[in-house]
Amino acid sequence: MTLLRDLAAALGAAGCLTGADIGAGAVSDASGTGRIPPLALLRPASVNEVSAALEICHRHGVGVVPQGGMTGLAGGANPQGGDVALSLTRFAGVEEIDPDCQTITLRAGTTLQAAQEAAAAAGFLLPVDLGSRGSCQIGGIVATNAGGVRVIRHGMTRDNLAGVEAVLADGTVLSSLTKVVKNNTGYDLRHLICGSEGTLAVITRAVLRLRPLPGARATALCALPDFAAVLALLKQARTHLPGLSAFEAMWRDYVLASSAAAGLQLFPDPPPFTVLIEAEGSAGGLDAEFEAMLAGAFEAGILSDALIAQSQAEAARFWTLREGHALDRMFPGLINLDIALPVALLDDYATACGSAIRARFPDAHVSFYGHVGDMNLHVAVGLTEPSEAAAHEVDRIAYDLVRERGGSVSAEHGIGVLKRDWLGHSRSAAEIAQMRAVKAAFDPKGVMNPGKVV
Amino acid sequence: MTLLRDLAAALGAAGCLTGADIGAGAVSDASGTGRIPPLALLRPASVNEVSAALEICHRHGVGVVPQGGMTGLAGGANPQGGDVALSLTRFAGVEEIDPDCQTITLRAGTTLQAAQEAAAAAGFLLPVDLGSRGSCQIGGIVATNAGGVRVIRHGMTRDNLAGVEAVLADGTVLSSLTKVVKNNTGYDLRHLICGSEGTLAVITRAVLRLRPLPGARATALCALPDFAAVLALLKQARTHLPGLSAFEAMWRDYVLASSAAAGLQLFPDPPPFTVLIEAEGSAGGLDAEFEAMLAGAFEAGILSDALIAQSQAEAARFWTLREGHALDRMFPGLINLDIALPVALLDDYATACGSAIRARFPDAHVSFYGHVGDMNLHVAVGLTEPSEAAAHEVDRIAYDLVRERGGSVSAEHGIGVLKRDWLGHSRSAAEIAQMRAVKAAFDPKGVMNPGKVV
Repeated sequence: MTLLRDLAAALGAAGCLTGADIGAGAVSDASGTGRIPPLALLRPASVNEVSAALEICHRHGVGVVPQGGMTGLAGGANPQGGDVALSLTRFAGVEEIDPDCQTITLRAGTTLQAAQEAAAAAGFLLPVDLGSRGSCQIGGIVATNAGGVRVIRHGMTRDNLAGVEAVLADGTVLSSLTKVVKNNTGYDLRHLICGSEGTLAVITRAVLRLRPLPGARATALCALPDFAAVLALLKQARTHLPGLSAFEAMWRDYVLASSAAAGLQLFPDPPPFTVLIEAEGSAGGLDAEFEAMLAGAFEAGILSDALIAQSQAEAARFWTLREGHALDRMFPGLINLDIALPVALLDDYATACGSAIRARFPDAHVSFYGHVGDMNLHVAVGLTEPSEAAAHEVDRIAYDLVRERGGSVSAEHGIGVLKRDWLGHSRSAAEIAQMRAVKAAFDPKGVMNPGKVV
Repeated sequence: MTLLRDLAAALGAAGCLTGADIGAGAVSDASGTGRIPPLALLRPASVNEVSAALEICHRHGVGVVPQGGMTGLAGGANPQGGDVALSLTRFAGVEEIDPDCQTITLRAGTTLQAAQEAAAAAGFLLPVDLGSRGSCQIGGIVATNAGGVRVIRHGMTRDNLAGVEAVLADGTVLSSLTKVVKNNTGYDLRHLICGSEGTLAVITRAVLRLRPLPGARATALCALPDFAAVLALLKQARTHLPGLSAFEAMWRDYVLASSAAAGLQLFPDPPPFTVLIEAEGSAGGLDAEFEAMLAGAFEAGILSDALIAQSQAEAARFWTLREGHALDRMFPGLINLDIALPVALLDDYATACGSAIRARFPDAHVSFYGHVGDMNLHVAVGLTEPSEAAAHEVDRIAYDLVRERGGSVSAEHGIGVLKRDWLGHSRSAAEIAQMRAVKAAFDPKGVMNPGKVV
């Protein structure tokens, strides 16, 4: 086959794996929904090799699926029949840390954890952080505009992205590895490529912003009587904690399940709402500021109890409750949805969504938790008889209720293939038509990650 | 003329001004470089009227120049021959403030100051702020991704933009007035429209993020011996002042001219570098934190003197020195450039740029100041015989030196028409080609703000 011969000639044997050499890892992302191996797994080791590989595929009219750490949950890195996969694992590493500009320049194949560690060694915080930090790669993080646990303070990936280099479908290299904060020179292609899930270009390098390492971090778990109190606590926290870095709310059913699954007991009788609150600040002033905020909220009747972490280990236990990985073991095939709504609507949504799912699946375990300070809710649904059809029914129930309330069907996970049917729930027909026009302007032959997003 | 008849029928007499009714204000932005009145000044009073006006112009193949408060400096709102101008002045006002989501929903014709005042009355800070706040309009601010004086803390306009509604060349309304922080549902058209200077769409509404009003603000003017000390102070300020909201450096020649022009004497003998530093924080803790940072910098030999503002009036005097409006009176036809570079290169740039301009224009007064914490430098050039040709020569000298150092020829002012010749100094040919492809995907007939940006 000419295609594979051309690719092997351009990339060498180590750069173009076929057959059994491809491995199972290139078949599906962490959603586990991929079924089809790619024709080949391309592993270019330089930007020139990425460019050469894309030019060859473009000439042959073959689809290219960019793959990072395969930790996505929307099927965005799963090959479709006849696609080749392209991984930047061999193009990894930190190229530069600039302490004056507070930036780090990274190759796309670098894992997030490696980048974080390099930043920390230089005395900086790389603010983007997610649970999959050990596997996920910078290219994938930028391509999906990853969110994570510090968005309330430092924003999504795009908010920390200074510059990007990417290769277009025909092999053209678009390079804008700038470190400057302000650059009003024409259209912001950076923000278009970020979040496009590999459908416009393959990201090869990125410049991310760094922050000073926080001198101190304080963490508390708060018990609240109702959702109005959650909103009131959020207001207090925003006003009195300039370094507020997490505001995570858990509904009671979630806390019961997660604490049972993880073998944790934090409040003896879980309250209606449990909020994990965290702030960064100076070693001198943070503790007093944090305790004053909590004391004020207690006196105002906003919270009924609060546990302030006395050690990193205790803070880690609070986060274990929130991360809820144990739920996956308790409910095989757990469905985990990721939506966003204006924050005041989240509890009304949770009530309506829980009722509607239980009306259809009476034995379902439905629970709610999430980055409420970012207006982002996760819905965990355990079914007694999980199936693809049942999951699709759950999706429809949950996303129809999001559409009614003007929210987003994907706060952080992206669209990929698994949410493509629901894109119209959050974006208008005119917007989707305009996205398709943009796609055609980047990739007229439709070879970049075919079938994804739009 | 059918065009004007159709427009008058759609918009009414008050919505379609012609001839002398147009007024001089629609001929040029604040750069003063516009010469040609538009065929008509359209003043639609609703989104439907904007849509109708654009559809008519599109059908007739007539260029449309969106105009906001006309405070731009790049000629981006100046009509070219045969264009109509479109102003949203009649579509103004605050539609909603959502205290839970911390957002404000604004019509495009609202002035920034009116929006700031409405936010403050509701207990919030609208972080975007510029000197022209009394005249500039929300539509223009979003269209140009305006920067301003608080970027170091709160980012550019795009960093505070949650949602946007805009009308495409053919009258299609693209509406995404979302308040949520996280919304990974397809391409981020918001960031493409923001900063496109009216060449892709007319912005009709925007949702901007609000922040809690700061409890306190502290301001100081610092004297520093050299640029290494400026960088060292920036590092200290970033590390010890989580609410750092301004870090503005002024080179000595600038301080001499600005203080003479404004009749201010702050340091008896201006030092090599003067830095205005400001921070926001809680009423309880800010002053101590601020003074401790300055004391530490003094002990470390980073600064030789510091004046802490003891009143708002004193802080305002520090800002008067920095804003340098008096320079315009001192040097008629003052050229004010706006560039960005990696921060450590700014002084080397200033030295090279000053020498090169004075080599060509021996009597020129050249001085440097700017948002150095954002890596943004302004270059003020007063010529004894100002002319368009001389200004173009100054541009070339200054921008060639930016290109050599990998910087941006427009940090905040945009490209418009005046910087179109220099776009290639900061963006590659591949990037510009891709911008043109995006332009064609939005506006295939090329009627949106013709001749601007790309």
